[in-house]
Amino acid sequence: MTHRTLIQDLAALPDGPVTVAGWVETVRDQKKVQFIILRDESGAAQLVNPATRPSTDSGAQEPSEAPAEGPGSAAALALTESISALSHGTFVRVTGELKHDERVKLGGLEVKIGTLEVVSEALETPIAADSSLDKRLDWRFLDLRQPKQSLIFRVQTTFLHALRTVWVEKGFIEIQTPKLMASASESRAELFQLEYFETVAYLAQSPQFFKQMAQSAGFGGIFEVGPAFRADPSFTSRHATEFTSIDTEFSWIDSHEDVMALHEELLAAGFQAVADTHGDEIREFFDVEVTVPQRPFPRIPLAEAKRIVAEQGYVIPRADDDMDPEGERRISQYVRETYGHEFVFLTDYASSIRPFYHMRHEGDPSLTNSYDLIFNGVEISTGAQREHRVEVLEAQAREKGLEPEELSFYLDFFRYGVPPHGGFGMGLARVLMLMLGESSIRETTYLFRGPTRLLP
Amino acid sequence: MTHRTLIQDLAALPDGPVTVAGWVETVRDQKKVQFIILRDESGAAQLVNPATRPSTDSGAQEPSEAPAEGPGSAAALALTESISALSHGTFVRVTGELKHDERVKLGGLEVKIGTLEVVSEALETPIAADSSLDKRLDWRFLDLRQPKQSLIFRVQTTFLHALRTVWVEKGFIEIQTPKLMASASESRAELFQLEYFETVAYLAQSPQFFKQMAQSAGFGGIFEVGPAFRADPSFTSRHATEFTSIDTEFSWIDSHEDVMALHEELLAAGFQAVADTHGDEIREFFDVEVTVPQRPFPRIPLAEAKRIVAEQGYVIPRADDDMDPEGERRISQYVRETYGHEFVFLTDYASSIRPFYHMRHEGDPSLTNSYDLIFNGVEISTGAQREHRVEVLEAQAREKGLEPEELSFYLDFFRYGVPPHGGFGMGLARVLMLMLGESSIRETTYLFRGPTRLLP
Repeated sequence: MTHRTLIQDLAALPDGPVTVAGWVETVRDQKKVQFIILRDESGAAQLVNPATRPSTDSGAQEPSEAPAEGPGSAAALALTESISALSHGTFVRVTGELKHDERVKLGGLEVKIGTLEVVSEALETPIAADSSLDKRLDWRFLDLRQPKQSLIFRVQTTFLHALRTVWVEKGFIEIQTPKLMASASESRAELFQLEYFETVAYLAQSPQFFKQMAQSAGFGGIFEVGPAFRADPSFTSRHATEFTSIDTEFSWIDSHEDVMALHEELLAAGFQAVADTHGDEIREFFDVEVTVPQRPFPRIPLAEAKRIVAEQGYVIPRADDDMDPEGERRISQYVRETYGHEFVFLTDYASSIRPFYHMRHEGDPSLTNSYDLIFNGVEISTGAQREHRVEVLEAQAREKGLEPEELSFYLDFFRYGVPPHGGFGMGLARVLMLMLGESSIRETTYLFRGPTRLLP
Repeated sequence: MTHRTLIQDLAALPDGPVTVAGWVETVRDQKKVQFIILRDESGAAQLVNPATRPSTDSGAQEPSEAPAEGPGSAAALALTESISALSHGTFVRVTGELKHDERVKLGGLEVKIGTLEVVSEALETPIAADSSLDKRLDWRFLDLRQPKQSLIFRVQTTFLHALRTVWVEKGFIEIQTPKLMASASESRAELFQLEYFETVAYLAQSPQFFKQMAQSAGFGGIFEVGPAFRADPSFTSRHATEFTSIDTEFSWIDSHEDVMALHEELLAAGFQAVADTHGDEIREFFDVEVTVPQRPFPRIPLAEAKRIVAEQGYVIPRADDDMDPEGERRISQYVRETYGHEFVFLTDYASSIRPFYHMRHEGDPSLTNSYDLIFNGVEISTGAQREHRVEVLEAQAREKGLEPEELSFYLDFFRYGVPPHGGFGMGLARVLMLMLGESSIRETTYLFRGPTRLLP
């Protein structure tokens, strides 16, 4: 490995020789002194060089007559010139003298440049801080060099590791379910299809069937973090054709209440880890205070939530029994004002707007043992107890217009015994968007995919 | 949640009332006593019931005249009958009396059944211990009920969590790269293509381009565990059309030696965690001793490895410069005998058999800064230093018959500056197969996908 000190570690070092490496964020090339802001994955530091300019006197000395080293030497001239020529984004390795100096705004230290090696030159960047989101996505690898952008993915790393640690400590099993399927996993709509040798395959819209299979296999509890695909032609700030889905499923539940309890535990652990590790940086870059949610989260049956927004005079512009995004925003606002909470479970959705595999209420089949989780105004997850009685499941599939024959491989999971179970799927990019107060999942996805975006 | 005690926790409980829940593995229905082996995700236990049979005397009492409870009661008769009727695989919940008894082979304890609730009945299982692999895969959810099979995925969970913990502690960033791409990521061969709105998309054969993008983005080090897709028509025990790839990539390396050092560290941590957590069970079910590999692993340049197997009289049946699977098996055997090691890095592969993005030796462009990692005779990974100088990269792409125009989005990552970097991709199912001495990745993949297998 290149010997170097990460910039975040400079503060703890005494004054003296150091090597740092990263990319040039800015150059201030003044007559008498040159400054470089050098950034690496851990932070930024100021590098300084007393400029040595070629003499402009008519009686200028030839370079060959310059002193061998020190100010005015050929080496000093060359260093000054190479700094003047640096383009933003160029990767360099610098050895120099670290000096702590409280007057330096950036971290109270600077490095006086001894030698500077250009490792990889950069063309002039085509994007600026005020470039459109679309242009920034065209140049995503440059956009991600902003510390605010890379912080999103450090937060993602911490969040996912905290969730997985909870699962692992509970004895849940990590599975990787196939994304190539012989049938649709959610609906025939929004389905990507491909030629597959002598037949066709579909891209998994969710791991639903396969995470339920693990319950029939007696795995007890499972989790998966992986891609899901929807041929969704919409262009909202919340939709993508490919997204990372956080999934879990577990057995021996009594109702969706057990699923919500695990959901709360996971989110509290994830938010705690993010607040502990990145709280200060998130405040600095996003002006957001990450709050660890209190458990239990508020729960409101969907019917009551609809009454609440109706009393506010809002008419939900939908023909079906569902909430709309504005209704979700309003009920979230209501919960924040009433309970001081950023999360709310809307529960007991109507069977008419839920998939066939959601279990229905005993005694009232018009309602399901299900919920949506709303976070800061936007739905981030759907969870439910699943119907595990095969004859009920088959009837519900028929009622939804599905052919049980097409689902036979799935129905088999239930014909050979399966305990009561449930789980949820949660969109990673949505959680991050709402946690950080961003306006679109395009900001919180490493490489967004939409109907007109497959590049880079 | 259903109140229950996991079977693995029974041993630590005193004699007394317990509730257990799981599926019926076997029933021994004797005249005077009935035994059930009940299994859950943690283990198996023996349940016992003193049988109450209807009297066969001609002067038999009517059931209504039976005692209200205890032996001979209607309840006891019903319990005996429901146990007789149990099919294998049925999920039940049982309350009873735990009794420690050293004479019971299975764990030195049994549970005398008080009540038994059939939670989910099962059809008779269509597979047996000696069913063919293909038939077992048809019924994968039943196959996975065998403790040996589910252990594979508990090992997987432990292994992956150990690797991720190493990465997280090093400050690496977890990314999820898109699986939908506008171009091939490895080669035009073995590429799945799909209609994508007004255009076509391809399924990622690897995250190669996108993990390199993170280096240009200044992320420093990244990791990803996710699916990769190859339209590979082969039917070997080592190939699949969809597989889980373990990927990492990091900056500021000097050569592929740095990549191998990280690779060793990750594997040692993963094997240590698996040995600590599952060593005994792996010995029991697989008759395998999990050995934590000593670092450094042996390294042999490919040319020398070929000389070694040639000296054994083996002629590699290939027209190109590569090893074949039998050669890999032989060199692995040689390393085991010579160095007592299960792993070997074969290094410095010929440029002719490596992708255009592998860096070549300074001074000898016929060789690359790359390696394959062989574990117990089979290749599990390819790693390399990447070429980061855009003009060299472009020339190497041309030499391999690729059109730089098609790769322009990728070449841009290098035009705007990128530090020296490298990484590896490793097949999860292969690691597990070789760690556990299994004969096929079909055994160590949750749901195998091959040219003729898309179900379940």
